[in-house]
Amino acid sequence: MPMDDKAADQIPDIADIFSAKQRINGAVRTTPVLSDPQLNAELGCELWLKCENLQRTCSFKFRGASNAVALLDEHGLDGDVATHSSGNHGAALALAASLHQRRAWIVMPENSVKTKVEAVRRNGGEVVFCDPNQQAREKGLAALVAKGCIPVPPYDHGHIISGQGTVAIEMAEQVPGLEIVLAPVGGGGLISGSAIAARALIPNVMVMGAEPEGAADTALSLRQGKRVETFPVNTIADGLRAIVGVLNFAIISENVDKVITVSEAGIIEAMALVWQRFRMLIEPSSATVVAAVLASPGDFSGRRVGAIISGGNVDLDHLPFSP
Amino acid sequence: MPMDDKAADQIPDIADIFSAKQRINGAVRTTPVLSDPQLNAELGCELWLKCENLQRTCSFKFRGASNAVALLDEHGLDGDVATHSSGNHGAALALAASLHQRRAWIVMPENSVKTKVEAVRRNGGEVVFCDPNQQAREKGLAALVAKGCIPVPPYDHGHIISGQGTVAIEMAEQVPGLEIVLAPVGGGGLISGSAIAARALIPNVMVMGAEPEGAADTALSLRQGKRVETFPVNTIADGLRAIVGVLNFAIISENVDKVITVSEAGIIEAMALVWQRFRMLIEPSSATVVAAVLASPGDFSGRRVGAIISGGNVDLDHLPFSP
Repeated sequence: MPMDDKAADQIPDIADIFSAKQRINGAVRTTPVLSDPQLNAELGCELWLKCENLQRTCSFKFRGASNAVALLDEHGLDGDVATHSSGNHGAALALAASLHQRRAWIVMPENSVKTKVEAVRRNGGEVVFCDPNQQAREKGLAALVAKGCIPVPPYDHGHIISGQGTVAIEMAEQVPGLEIVLAPVGGGGLISGSAIAARALIPNVMVMGAEPEGAADTALSLRQGKRVETFPVNTIADGLRAIVGVLNFAIISENVDKVITVSEAGIIEAMALVWQRFRMLIEPSSATVVAAVLASPGDFSGRRVGAIISGGNVDLDHLPFSP
Repeated sequence: MPMDDKAADQIPDIADIFSAKQRINGAVRTTPVLSDPQLNAELGCELWLKCENLQRTCSFKFRGASNAVALLDEHGLDGDVATHSSGNHGAALALAASLHQRRAWIVMPENSVKTKVEAVRRNGGEVVFCDPNQQAREKGLAALVAKGCIPVPPYDHGHIISGQGTVAIEMAEQVPGLEIVLAPVGGGGLISGSAIAARALIPNVMVMGAEPEGAADTALSLRQGKRVETFPVNTIADGLRAIVGVLNFAIISENVDKVITVSEAGIIEAMALVWQRFRMLIEPSSATVVAAVLASPGDFSGRRVGAIISGGNVDLDHLPFSP
């Protein structure tokens, strides 16, 4: 049993993230970075998109899930894994478990989009439907845990955070001289891991978050100096509706320079722009980072910016922009 | 004036393609390759997608156009460039010219899709509308040439072919041990350049083409041992409607092992599959390579296959599959 990895309830450090990178390298794709000189000229900065939409299961979530499940193996903890998810974590955990010869049980609201249910099943997961509310989801998960399943939460967990941080290690290698690392903020798994990695690896880097105005609990928590536990959520960015996690908020408070809030119209405009210029359809949550650059150009002017495109799981028949 | 590059009316060799690669490296993106182990298990082969849909201007055409325009510079040939195009070559030539401080005049049918017109203009090109028929397009181009523009054709041109061949050099570096290189066949620029490069660099490689049944002039020409000059074209794959070029057919006859024809239904199924598994929307022309693997699994069984995804310029409001 390796003793150099911190426990799941502790804040990881760069050694944990490097350890995660080694652990998941065989399973995870090194995703490409893309930059468009014409767009850069228009934006007034050098914007690099780190394309986690091209990750396996089509989101960064596969990194954290892979690390968490691989650590269960290393720690000799046998058994099925479980989570509740209506989104990308469910498919990611299903695939990670399947690659480690475990079953994964994913509690999903019975009104989940069909493609998301299919994604979980295609990746080897077992879907357990529940009523479409938070209480039913937690009850569903609790029942699975009572039967012996190991819960793997989506973001408030040190091993998940370490896995997500590997994306920033990759980006720092792929784009030398980054001055700003920019990531969406939802539960905070991606930005907290990325912030730890970026601070350790890139001298004088600034770490910024992008958050929808309609789910701006982290920006509010930072202003208040204390993590808020509720927020009236209303945003198209379905991946960012969660309240920031406890570990995540502690890391963000310490390591993130600024969280920029973006409007719904800005998110939609950014989705359309990325489609127009890169022919990539990205999910609204991902588009927040591009929306932040458009909304607050002064923060990025003349800088080399690495913006993490968190995922590509968007419903083609419900696109919020007209091409 | 460099003497080591063959003239535009000659068949290039691997030295010309390496020379093209050096020439265009600063402008062209090294596009990623993606493979999905689960999909591979289902297909019974190891399929790598070479993602030229993520190239600048969102297709491989930017490689050939960049090489052709850069060679005009090297050869001291000043002046504007011109072509007729309703598709990807127009935008690619516009950008290549713009990066070399030249104007590009693109003759386009007046019923061209708005997004394609915008793409040409965004990339710095001047659009000249004409009636929507082949004769008017050629007349429009002839008028520009009469005024002193240098024509840069889309595929039947040695410098274009050399540029397109650079994609296979990249892929051979990115995926060691390739056994089959698979590319769409339209005018034949991509597959002819790729075939020359692949044969030179990969021992015992097989080169295969994918062609829509509704534009299978190359398959017919190969069967007849002679390039046909007309074909009743009817396919959704708008990038593959051209008759194979003269130089291109000569190269294909010599270097391509097999051209697999695919149905319209197969193309649409392949587009949907790539969207489902990779969250990439690719144009129907690109989907022919995946359709070929689905249609003729025996040709690929157990092999490591590099399939070139030629472009991503698809109209979101006219998707041929329902997600």
